[in-house]
Amino acid sequence: MTKTNTGRFFEDFVVGETIHHATPRTVTAGDVALYTALYGSRFAVQSADAFARGVGYPHAPVDDLLVFHIVFGKTVPDISLNAVANLGYAGCRFLHAVYPGDTLSAISEVIGVKENSNGRTGVVYVRTQGFKQDGTEVLDYIRWVMVRKRDEASPAPEAVVPEVPAALAADTLGDAAPVISGTYWDDRLSGSPHRFADYLPGERIDHVDGMTVEEAEHQIATRLYQNTAKVHFNQHTEGQGRFGRRLIYGGHVISLARALSFNGLANAWHVAAINGGRHVAPLFAGETVYAWSEVIDRAELPGRDDIGALRLRTIATKDRACADFPHVDAGNRYDPSVILDLDYWALIPR
Amino acid sequence: MTKTNTGRFFEDFVVGETIHHATPRTVTAGDVALYTALYGSRFAVQSADAFARGVGYPHAPVDDLLVFHIVFGKTVPDISLNAVANLGYAGCRFLHAVYPGDTLSAISEVIGVKENSNGRTGVVYVRTQGFKQDGTEVLDYIRWVMVRKRDEASPAPEAVVPEVPAALAADTLGDAAPVISGTYWDDRLSGSPHRFADYLPGERIDHVDGMTVEEAEHQIATRLYQNTAKVHFNQHTEGQGRFGRRLIYGGHVISLARALSFNGLANAWHVAAINGGRHVAPLFAGETVYAWSEVIDRAELPGRDDIGALRLRTIATKDRACADFPHVDAGNRYDPSVILDLDYWALIPR
Amino acid sequence: MTKTNTGRFFEDFVVGETIHHATPRTVTAGDVALYTALYGSRFAVQSADAFARGVGYPHAPVDDLLVFHIVFGKTVPDISLNAVANLGYAGCRFLHAVYPGDTLSAISEVIGVKENSNGRTGVVYVRTQGFKQDGTEVLDYIRWVMVRKRDEASPAPEAVVPEVPAALAADTLGDAAPVISGTYWDDRLSGSPHRFADYLPGERIDHVDGMTVEEAEHQIATRLYQNTAKVHFNQHTEGQGRFGRRLIYGGHVISLARALSFNGLANAWHVAAINGGRHVAPLFAGETVYAWSEVIDRAELPGRDDIGALRLRTIATKDRACADFPHVDAGNRYDPSVILDLDYWALIPR
Repeated sequence: MTKTNTGRFFEDFVVGETIHHATPRTVTAGDVALYTALYGSRFAVQSADAFARGVGYPHAPVDDLLVFHIVFGKTVPDISLNAVANLGYAGCRFLHAVYPGDTLSAISEVIGVKENSNGRTGVVYVRTQGFKQDGTEVLDYIRWVMVRKRDEASPAPEAVVPEVPAALAADTLGDAAPVISGTYWDDRLSGSPHRFADYLPGERIDHVDGMTVEEAEHQIATRLYQNTAKVHFNQHTEGQGRFGRRLIYGGHVISLARALSFNGLANAWHVAAINGGRHVAPLFAGETVYAWSEVIDRAELPGRDDIGALRLRTIATKDRACADFPHVDAGNRYDPSVILDLDYWALIPR
Repeated sequence: MTKTNTGRFFEDFVVGETIHHATPRTVTAGDVALYTALYGSRFAVQSADAFARGVGYPHAPVDDLLVFHIVFGKTVPDISLNAVANLGYAGCRFLHAVYPGDTLSAISEVIGVKENSNGRTGVVYVRTQGFKQDGTEVLDYIRWVMVRKRDEASPAPEAVVPEVPAALAADTLGDAAPVISGTYWDDRLSGSPHRFADYLPGERIDHVDGMTVEEAEHQIATRLYQNTAKVHFNQHTEGQGRFGRRLIYGGHVISLARALSFNGLANAWHVAAINGGRHVAPLFAGETVYAWSEVIDRAELPGRDDIGALRLRTIATKDRACADFPHVDAGNRYDPSVILDLDYWALIPR
Repeated sequence: MTKTNTGRFFEDFVVGETIHHATPRTVTAGDVALYTALYGSRFAVQSADAFARGVGYPHAPVDDLLVFHIVFGKTVPDISLNAVANLGYAGCRFLHAVYPGDTLSAISEVIGVKENSNGRTGVVYVRTQGFKQDGTEVLDYIRWVMVRKRDEASPAPEAVVPEVPAALAADTLGDAAPVISGTYWDDRLSGSPHRFADYLPGERIDHVDGMTVEEAEHQIATRLYQNTAKVHFNQHTEGQGRFGRRLIYGGHVISLARALSFNGLANAWHVAAINGGRHVAPLFAGETVYAWSEVIDRAELPGRDDIGALRLRTIATKDRACADFPHVDAGNRYDPSVILDLDYWALIPR
């Protein structure tokens, strides 16, 4: 019997099963520095202890997406090592601020399985939770992936397809944000005078800058997250594969788009929830990522007069500037440049 | 009205105006590790808490140039996003040691403007100061850049051209250096037996080694400094530009040259001041940086018998070793290999 | 007289001499994050303070190989700057856990010299010890390198060839491991149910995954270790050299193989000793590293019923998967894909 983990196949997932993922991970100032170096993020709360303390945190929290990537990375060896495709995620909430020194671990529950009609693959739905060392839940999301069957002859399990929320309600947001002092919040230091009241649904913002990605960069990032998906790292096999190249981790694109979005959304400091996201097309090294955002909703949070929530659609493209907001055509087909369509809630001071 | 920052144009700079730059930044052990990994710096004081404590610091201070790059990076979105050229800097003093945990922020004052005769651009002079969270000033320098006008028809402002010091006097140096214990200072651990008295004006030192720069490296460095200058990151646009390639941040060259200079200047642990510097030619990924230095002056510091100052000219070249000290020809034209001509004061124990 | 260090030549090594290497180095959380980002290591003890504390450490120790690389890096300017070849190492023991905040320094003693019959080179044997700031020895190893003579006419020294241990005895292992709580040790979190008793001599494990190496990655790693060997960094000279390319630091391969070995050896958390290793062939950027291991011995440790030792041979290859365990042919010639043959002791809970 081999001691090597070759990953679960579709048949190995049983609805109701709980999977404790390996390798808890202490997040440190080293991870934060690397995150800055990989994306160039400039949100003041995450960048500066002094600013974070002034507005209400004990000190600078770790970037929300770094927390997401670390928790997500833990799930890869158990959930998606034999995945054919990442189909979607939903209901992703950031529930508690994470600080350097916190140790993160992850647990997933299998909440649905549905074999595909081809009999070769199936869809697996999991709910993943990320925790701190003291049991505090910091992250919660649903993800569904298409996974190969080990044996095409094995019988199909009873189909269970969970309800997946289209979007999170505003009253579920804000748990990870302390009461924010809008008085201390210095718009000169945060980089923008625009606050909650200045953004209106329908508004579109071009984030202007472009960022070219190198192989070393996305590999360093994805290993930092201890994400073991083979397609990101192995040119020897990927060179023979569908694209002839290593595929960049989709989360790397999300973090690039979020960092670029600083230019236009500088005060939207905290990702409170991700309603859903679609990796429309793959990104490869040497390509340049641009982004733009649309405000698709705006919400007050119950009992919070310090902050509000903006629901944003952030579109990332490759090798195409976003001054004219490339998205979908009349037939709802994505512009060929689009690589990411992300729907999320960000918090912003009043 | 757009929420996107497209940067100031020449007309937007008014003499006397103070600009508070965005995104304060806490420097951490993570930044220090990345700085070491990007340049291979080996100066003992910055490398080892134990050594730093022994010679008089509370623990290892952050490399002076890392402080410079972070402060400089903050100014880019406000000062030089529409710059055509970085013309020079002067009067740069390091005023207080910075330690991991300190939060840096930056303020610039516009101290001069002068429209060029072409009516399309002008020169802007700023004095930038870097501060810690408690208000301690850590860095002070003057910089001048050529900036595009938004509208060529706009009238020229009254020209104001500030006096810029050619070099800093020795009695302005040393504020950031505690009293150094030359007794503890172990030349075996610091890497060289040569101290203040061993260096004489006119002496030239080949730093021998060469370092090839990769795209991922300079991008990681420049993002670490939250420097947003577009030319360093966007192959999609730069590929169509003047050089067909991304331009490496000039400060990256300075840090490479400084790290290489360890071989020959191992005890010159602290950059006290930069008198001026010229980026003679651009550096691109794939090219190899070499460096040599000349001692152009030597000074005692008033009231300090523990340390002295060496005024150094460090020349960096690309793709050319420096055993024969390439610099300028009889007509004062730079050797084609030269990319940097830096004039600075470094401190060294007696 | 030059102030530049051009390295020692064969004639400069005298048996019995002690060399204090330059630049002590404080290891930090920044180094740990970079190590994770460069190799993707996932051993739970080094990854998570909470896990490390639970099993018996005060908090997460630094990866053993990171300690090795830093100590090794210090010796390069004094020992191997003019080395023609790294011939071997032996008797390498990890003697005490290293934690972020510890400052490492290194001392070597010349324990052997033997001129080669060609009269142009000689073999130098050194014993290197790594220490913490308080004098605790953390690492001890013997290394031998072939070094050029400065002057071929200089007389050969009396040959001294030290005894080099073929392998370390089990009773010399374990000093760096606290008493490990096997009860707390959660196999779900560590990533494998397989402990000491599950591994048998002769067992072979394919570590499955492949990792492609980029120039930026190995340069960042090797500079992080302050290793100054020229061949790793200078494309301008190496492009004219034997391989036409920069050579990747052999230690980078060891760390990649060790990180890959997690898949199959997840509970073998601590490298207690390296018996020897051979860099069979060079690795270059763009190539993909795979690895497999054989259990060549298994030993109980005197007085330790918490843990045991596995003696492992880990073979790394390039551009060739290891499902069929490539090694040597009948004539004892290495498979052309093999780049590393490493013999070490790893500790694993009972």
